[in-house]
Amino acid sequence: MSQQKNDFQLMDEQQLSVELISAQYEIKNTRGQNNAKSLVILVNGIELAGKGEAVKQLREWVDPRYLKVKADPPIVLDRQHPFWQPYARFIPAEGQILVLFGSWYSDLLSTAMHASNPIDDSLYDEYIERMRAYEQDLKNNHVDVIKIWFDLPWKALQKRLDEIEPSDMHWHKLHGLDWRSKKQYETIQQLRQRFTDDWLIVDGEDENERNQKFAQHILNALKDCPKHSTKAVGRWKQAKIPKTLLEPSNETLDKDEYKARLKKLTQKVAHALRTDPRCVVIVFEGMDAAGKGGAIKRIVKKLDPREYEIHTIAAPEQYELRRPYLWRFWSKLNTEDICIFDRTWYGRVLVERIEGFATPVEWRRAYDEINRFERDLTENQTVVIKFWLAISKDEQEARFKARENTAHKRFKITEDDWRNRERWDDYLKAAADMFERTNTENAPWHVIATDDKYSARIAVLEAILKQLKAN
Amino acid sequence: MSQQKNDFQLMDEQQLSVELISAQYEIKNTRGQNNAKSLVILVNGIELAGKGEAVKQLREWVDPRYLKVKADPPIVLDRQHPFWQPYARFIPAEGQILVLFGSWYSDLLSTAMHASNPIDDSLYDEYIERMRAYEQDLKNNHVDVIKIWFDLPWKALQKRLDEIEPSDMHWHKLHGLDWRSKKQYETIQQLRQRFTDDWLIVDGEDENERNQKFAQHILNALKDCPKHSTKAVGRWKQAKIPKTLLEPSNETLDKDEYKARLKKLTQKVAHALRTDPRCVVIVFEGMDAAGKGGAIKRIVKKLDPREYEIHTIAAPEQYELRRPYLWRFWSKLNTEDICIFDRTWYGRVLVERIEGFATPVEWRRAYDEINRFERDLTENQTVVIKFWLAISKDEQEARFKARENTAHKRFKITEDDWRNRERWDDYLKAAADMFERTNTENAPWHVIATDDKYSARIAVLEAILKQLKAN
Repeated sequence: MSQQKNDFQLMDEQQLSVELISAQYEIKNTRGQNNAKSLVILVNGIELAGKGEAVKQLREWVDPRYLKVKADPPIVLDRQHPFWQPYARFIPAEGQILVLFGSWYSDLLSTAMHASNPIDDSLYDEYIERMRAYEQDLKNNHVDVIKIWFDLPWKALQKRLDEIEPSDMHWHKLHGLDWRSKKQYETIQQLRQRFTDDWLIVDGEDENERNQKFAQHILNALKDCPKHSTKAVGRWKQAKIPKTLLEPSNETLDKDEYKARLKKLTQKVAHALRTDPRCVVIVFEGMDAAGKGGAIKRIVKKLDPREYEIHTIAAPEQYELRRPYLWRFWSKLNTEDICIFDRTWYGRVLVERIEGFATPVEWRRAYDEINRFERDLTENQTVVIKFWLAISKDEQEARFKARENTAHKRFKITEDDWRNRERWDDYLKAAADMFERTNTENAPWHVIATDDKYSARIAVLEAILKQLKAN
Repeated sequence: MSQQKNDFQLMDEQQLSVELISAQYEIKNTRGQNNAKSLVILVNGIELAGKGEAVKQLREWVDPRYLKVKADPPIVLDRQHPFWQPYARFIPAEGQILVLFGSWYSDLLSTAMHASNPIDDSLYDEYIERMRAYEQDLKNNHVDVIKIWFDLPWKALQKRLDEIEPSDMHWHKLHGLDWRSKKQYETIQQLRQRFTDDWLIVDGEDENERNQKFAQHILNALKDCPKHSTKAVGRWKQAKIPKTLLEPSNETLDKDEYKARLKKLTQKVAHALRTDPRCVVIVFEGMDAAGKGGAIKRIVKKLDPREYEIHTIAAPEQYELRRPYLWRFWSKLNTEDICIFDRTWYGRVLVERIEGFATPVEWRRAYDEINRFERDLTENQTVVIKFWLAISKDEQEARFKARENTAHKRFKITEDDWRNRERWDDYLKAAADMFERTNTENAPWHVIATDDKYSARIAVLEAILKQLKAN
């Protein structure tokens, strides 16, 4: 998919600028529409090939107010966090354009060049594969990604190094790389060739052509705002609803027994969560009134309030809707070592599917996106513990009524809750599909029957210990 | 204003919990209403007095999903950033509750105790005054702040230090303080007494009473959601509209002359901005089509795109409206050493005043709030350069029409622009009041006549050099 057309032609600069600005305003105006998108421009390349200059020129041609630029030194990929994490919160909203000087690819290159602890070939290729999958997920979620490599032959680089003014060195931080070493130059070229198939390669030797090629490539990307398909292809194979959802039954637990076991378990869970060297993400889904709040309260009972964070997920805000639906979770993941989610990213395949907030194409695709997202977490020092609290329809009704009749619980019940209840069967179907498709080995679901609150809470605590291998 | 009532009584725990949860839901439901507020709880005190335990108990009594807790080690107040900056972005939205373990007060105490470079008495007191002013500004903007000091007599502290379990030490990081030193204990007590007049002092000796006092205090704060007054008191003294606004006239500049001067000035400005050790914040306000975009383009012309950030300010989003109006600017200030704002916090006293988005009480109060905000910046290594681009009404009309008739500029003009134009005189009045009240010595306004674009751009660049004392 090379974009190196031989028919490249310089444009009149004034004309190029006018077209770029028009395209900027047009993309801004697609916000909220079906053909809306944002654009991320990954810029990388050989030192002194002129990527800084090309972006500078671009920013003179465009309306600079609507082109963000971010530049950070590379971060070593050490399996402590997903490669996208340092960048995820900067992913722009629909209508916006972002140039990233440092990106997951510079991190990868830098890690591979790391003298003391380089990564091996297969891991390197695995990273490339993951990065491409991530970019594809971004694209599907209205974030277009284009990648541009600024190249420079060895001799030209050496000449530029000879001529560089000391005052300019500021912008040529070498990040531990020695651009005078031919061996290293060749290594970088070999390494980058393993991922630059789908990049635009810009030769940095001719300044004018370089800047124009770069800008024209962006112009083409900006102009290309296709509508997103909403109709799903093929029939949907509905999973069978498991018995644990249809008839959630749990043993009732005697109050004294409950209290005794709870006391021990809360201690053990606090200790296990606190001492686990990994981050722990605990995820709660389930029908309204299934007891999510109560379960969370018991998990944190013996923890210090400074040790954990609870994220209560409501409907997304307008500014969140203009970004990939996982975006609002990315930024909530590293707040504490112990993060508890009261409702989650699974909203995509539950409420958003059922209420039509996500199109069939979107929610059908979401299972794989979520699996990739969770895999990126679990492969990077994070445990993901997922709970579905399964309540029976009768017990839910009883709890709703109790809430309505208790002064201090009346706030906990709204019209929405009764409305959701009418779609009970739809939720069961959606949950069944969710289990079938996202019950992965690295992040399995725990379905907990909750008609008896006591035994449900005990079961949640035991499941945490089990998954942490601390029981 | 001591809240140490002698008539303190323990409540039934169940009852206390029920009331806290009800109050939480009630405050959540005030969102967007005139009596809406959020609550920030500053927690500080003598080590081992039990602030962690009290918050833990509180979180058991409340619905923990709607009570955020943040704890960070103290930061030395070194005049490199305003004291509120590390905390500002966490200021909660209406309906939310936040417990801050570390706050500006712990930073102040820690700075004062700093062995190598303590701050003197007058600076210490000045900080306290500024902090109280900041808290008052928060309160006026729907963020209630309550402050609780957990106290412990010297002997009781020593006893607890003797008894502490090594495994608990985790939560008693001493931040360089030696709680075995009586002298230091006394110094801390003296220092904190200079700011704890308006704090609730909780004695940490009796655990049960401590936790209840703390929780009841919060309960009272939650229940107290008075309506915000919207009617301003007293007549508004309208400032006289200066001639520079009524008849903005500038010399026309010949194109060749312009180009020659521009070339030199853009170099000088880039150099001055780059080498200034302070952060530079450049602020643009003015009527539509006055040339803000063009001026910004020339400022950044010789800068590398990685050196600066341009913030284009549009109408606030829903989630921003639920916080103090300065909140969305706080988080945009430290993005780069050079920050340019295309429209700013002055929207409060311009468009929000004119369109009625801010009540008279709010916009009248905003001048002082803004002055305090800018002073906090300028006293902490930040230069604030403020421009009003003054265009004549005729020239604006000419530019609007030109925009409508030029294909690539049509995006730059909307119905809103014509509508705002109808309120021309209101904007002039609001601008006049703004100059009179916010043209401070530390952050003066530069009014630039812009009917001639060339000389306007030159004037902007020269004003930057002048204020940076780099000309």
